[in-house]
Amino acid sequence: MFDNDNLTALEAQRQATFICYAPMIFQSVKTMLNLGIMDILKKAGDEGTTIDEISEETGVWKYGVRVLLQSALGAGVVYQKDEKFKLTKTGVFLISKQLAAQIHINFVNDVCYNGMFYLEDSIKNKNAEGLKVLGEWDTIYDGLSELSPDVKKSWLDLDHYFSDVSYDAAFEILSKESFTNILDLGGNTGKFCRYLIQKMPDIQFTIGDLPGQIGMARKEMAASGLDTSNIHYQTLNILNEDSEPEGKFDIIWMSQFLDCFHEDDITSILKKCKKALAENGRIFVQDAFWDRQRFETGAFSLQQFSLYFTAMANGRSQMYDFPTFKEAVEKAGLEIIEIHDHIGRSNSLLKIK
Amino acid sequence: MFDNDNLTALEAQRQATFICYAPMIFQSVKTMLNLGIMDILKKAGDEGTTIDEISEETGVWKYGVRVLLQSALGAGVVYQKDEKFKLTKTGVFLISKQLAAQIHINFVNDVCYNGMFYLEDSIKNKNAEGLKVLGEWDTIYDGLSELSPDVKKSWLDLDHYFSDVSYDAAFEILSKESFTNILDLGGNTGKFCRYLIQKMPDIQFTIGDLPGQIGMARKEMAASGLDTSNIHYQTLNILNEDSEPEGKFDIIWMSQFLDCFHEDDITSILKKCKKALAENGRIFVQDAFWDRQRFETGAFSLQQFSLYFTAMANGRSQMYDFPTFKEAVEKAGLEIIEIHDHIGRSNSLLKIK
Repeated sequence: MFDNDNLTALEAQRQATFICYAPMIFQSVKTMLNLGIMDILKKAGDEGTTIDEISEETGVWKYGVRVLLQSALGAGVVYQKDEKFKLTKTGVFLISKQLAAQIHINFVNDVCYNGMFYLEDSIKNKNAEGLKVLGEWDTIYDGLSELSPDVKKSWLDLDHYFSDVSYDAAFEILSKESFTNILDLGGNTGKFCRYLIQKMPDIQFTIGDLPGQIGMARKEMAASGLDTSNIHYQTLNILNEDSEPEGKFDIIWMSQFLDCFHEDDITSILKKCKKALAENGRIFVQDAFWDRQRFETGAFSLQQFSLYFTAMANGRSQMYDFPTFKEAVEKAGLEIIEIHDHIGRSNSLLKIK
Repeated sequence: MFDNDNLTALEAQRQATFICYAPMIFQSVKTMLNLGIMDILKKAGDEGTTIDEISEETGVWKYGVRVLLQSALGAGVVYQKDEKFKLTKTGVFLISKQLAAQIHINFVNDVCYNGMFYLEDSIKNKNAEGLKVLGEWDTIYDGLSELSPDVKKSWLDLDHYFSDVSYDAAFEILSKESFTNILDLGGNTGKFCRYLIQKMPDIQFTIGDLPGQIGMARKEMAASGLDTSNIHYQTLNILNEDSEPEGKFDIIWMSQFLDCFHEDDITSILKKCKKALAENGRIFVQDAFWDRQRFETGAFSLQQFSLYFTAMANGRSQMYDFPTFKEAVEKAGLEIIEIHDHIGRSNSLLKIK
């Protein structure tokens, strides 16, 4: 993937011009989706439809329909035969459920678009300078509950999309390990805990996270009606030098947690984990690496999604490439001894000792 | 152009995903240009260069270089062999003078990016709702002198790029006409006037425009040292019902003027022109039509640039397609009797009677 330069000069010129006007194309496609123009084009199918017909059906004035469609012609979203406009395959993908394009578009528009203007500043200042357009918080996580409902929905929809982890697939791997206790570091509200204790009621399960998350986890555990006698909690802010897991664990589990940290912090977190491993203990890390995706479009989404971390979330983490992550692991004096790819939508599960 | 759907399903899927993350790609390319990363890649040529080397040369921290390059991999701007990154042809186009990509990128970023967020509202409200991010003016023209120097430079650079009209090519056509007087409607600061009276010192030249423009034109004419005895001025706001050219003219000339108006207004302006034509008088219109461009990338830029009019300039004009413009002419009871394409960078010159 991404190891060749095989466009023709003409295609490359078109691609470069496309990039120059990319924000226009994005906004015009988004507008066509939101105003129902894409739906009408989809319904019209191979026969196509005209500016007048679309204007009549949507109530959008003719001028508006026309500038949008003409932008979409250049973007390769529609094509035109005489007066009839039809969706291209690209256009069909943009409204199909298969690609979940609207989840990505709403996230990019509602959460990222305005803040992404500050990407350059974010990189220069090593800080997510785009976050201020959403609110005055240190990180987006602090502000999540204050986001407007639309923005919050767009954020959660994409979060859910990328978090589509397959617990079953992960469990199949984990169940081959022998262990009596497990620490879920960054365990959040305890979702994985509730899954695992039903499969393995005898293990001791510790959730480690920030105070807010631990509070929510306790509530959700209580509400679940499950037997919580083997559940334990550790409140810790893993970035603080003096905050580290207490006790020794057969397994330390971190799912979609380490990609929220800079590689140097990953090393320091892993060092703390190493100290907290029982004899023969193992660390399991579940994360998405863009260079371990099955499809190039999957890799692409993760590469671009990384910039959300840069400009909006924390200014210093990303969806990692595997070599960078591996180096961070090895700097902690640890080794990746197993890799299981394609867990859920896009995750890999790493066994580390 | 734009009349087929010839991508493969895989290419279309990639294109759709590209559109979803288009704002990220735009901002990451812009950042790579501004931070000097593209220059270093260009210098490295076929040999390529590494994240560490780029970080050292630019002073941009390694994390920043890495997320930008990895976004650029997906965008097809760079490719990677082992640890070395190299510019693709697309990347080369983005820094070459040939495509003037940086003029487009600076314009889109500085003038349009933030306002384009309001494209959907602009179309719904028939008003340039994006303009407010630059200032509280009725139109961008009112605010031009108050724009910050950077934004103003980006605006003027692109204006200059698209206005690269060839007066010589236009004059060659005009000089075949017999006429003793000419009205330059939307004559702005009189640039064309100063050109023409040197070629044809005996004609009577009238500049018609808004009061502000006429004031500037008078000043610039005086400063030019040219003989101004045959120069006349008419102050008019052509959109006002009772404002119309006075007198009869052999030729009415409108260059890059009518694309600032909605098609209905174009018809009403042309009706006023028709009334102001002497017997056997002719109207000449010079404008860029996206469907009369020699190259698809030229058409593409104009299609997307149109959305600047929609969201930023006035909410109701565009770089027209020829059929829409022709219809507006014919609704005024006039006819296009000659078309000369490829005048200057992208203009067509229409003779109308």
